[in-house]
Amino acid sequence: MAKIEAKLKKLGLVLPAQLQTPPGMKALPFSFLRITGKHVYISGHVPQAPDGAFAQPIGKLGKELTVEQGYEAAKLVGLSMLASLKRELGDLDRVTKWLKVFGMVNCAPGFTKTPHVINGISELLVELYGPEVGLHARSAVGMAELPFNIPVEIEAEVEIDG
Amino acid sequence: MAKIEAKLKKLGLVLPAQLQTPPGMKALPFSFLRITGKHVYISGHVPQAPDGAFAQPIGKLGKELTVEQGYEAAKLVGLSMLASLKRELGDLDRVTKWLKVFGMVNCAPGFTKTPHVINGISELLVELYGPEVGLHARSAVGMAELPFNIPVEIEAEVEIDG
Amino acid sequence: MAKIEAKLKKLGLVLPAQLQTPPGMKALPFSFLRITGKHVYISGHVPQAPDGAFAQPIGKLGKELTVEQGYEAAKLVGLSMLASLKRELGDLDRVTKWLKVFGMVNCAPGFTKTPHVINGISELLVELYGPEVGLHARSAVGMAELPFNIPVEIEAEVEIDG
Repeated sequence: MAKIEAKLKKLGLVLPAQLQTPPGMKALPFSFLRITGKHVYISGHVPQAPDGAFAQPIGKLGKELTVEQGYEAAKLVGLSMLASLKRELGDLDRVTKWLKVFGMVNCAPGFTKTPHVINGISELLVELYGPEVGLHARSAVGMAELPFNIPVEIEAEVEIDG
Repeated sequence: MAKIEAKLKKLGLVLPAQLQTPPGMKALPFSFLRITGKHVYISGHVPQAPDGAFAQPIGKLGKELTVEQGYEAAKLVGLSMLASLKRELGDLDRVTKWLKVFGMVNCAPGFTKTPHVINGISELLVELYGPEVGLHARSAVGMAELPFNIPVEIEAEVEIDG
Repeated sequence: MAKIEAKLKKLGLVLPAQLQTPPGMKALPFSFLRITGKHVYISGHVPQAPDGAFAQPIGKLGKELTVEQGYEAAKLVGLSMLASLKRELGDLDRVTKWLKVFGMVNCAPGFTKTPHVINGISELLVELYGPEVGLHARSAVGMAELPFNIPVEIEAEVEIDG
């Protein structure tokens, strides 16, 4: 069995189904992943439930969500990215280096613990891939609004085997 | 005639003149495009009128602008990027792959339809270049403020022929 | 002596010590720099005092900080990035091309002079490296919140010699 998937299983973590877009929304005019050579651009991903729906709770950090709930949401974004990578690459072991994570937190006024929230994905990546592959450059910042009032959106770049 | 420019003409779309910076503003200490090898980094571009001025209306989505006006503004940002690429590359057909679009929407509190706004550029790129070249990884998120209170700012990365 | 460091000395500018994270904060699950081949991803950096602490003043542009203070903060972020590059690369002359700067300003409602703030780093880079190496693609935008209420956070990408 592939190493990363074995680790996910051991940790009791599930990759979500493809995103269910809200009713009435058009076909998406962009790609969840864009690959050029060994480089993968990962679109802004969102927290998903295992069935592919937007995960609950929805809302802003410092208002509807606690730091702990934001951390879990960021971890779910990580699983959503891994699900996209798995669908496209077939095997998550093909990721040879996490390069960059841009973590965006939906902040109520005065909420500044954005790094604590984005640690939810960063710690997942380091746990799954180990520090050599899993560490990444990062920003963890506070947005005024995010689509559909989700608490966290994250985009990333990774390197894969040739 | 170059293919992309022929399509622009057919759609009745015009590439704007170079940006007119506001009076009193210093020379810009950055580049609208930065090229390394086959990779082009595109600075945050803004909605421009054909004469190069900031396009009207100015303001925030959910306050001064409707979703439809935001969509048009995002489309104008796309035309502004294409104008920069044309000035630098000579021919828009030289773009071989749109990689990434980072769409930033100037949001009044509670405006969460940022994807609907950024579709203005995404749908333009797919229409002009077709899905194989024009699709891109994307985020569409809500900013607290944008320069000069413009409604939309977007940056991007593309690949060009050698 | 290395050229860039000689220029820094001539300008009376000091590279700060490594960031002192706030008491009680865990080890960081990300890297300040992530290198692949000749490409360096630079994490979101913050304004630092020479001893490595967060620089004062803390707060939002348009509320606690003036444009001039924001400009100085952005310049300090540039010095913080250079300090990270020096620690990792040994010699700042190894940077052969600044590619991209993403400048994020902590904005009180209505503060739109984000480009004037981010000029603090852009003008530093052009002064130190000259336009051919130092110019860069850029966005300068307004965030709702930044970690620890710092006034400016900036991430970047550079190219280095092989």
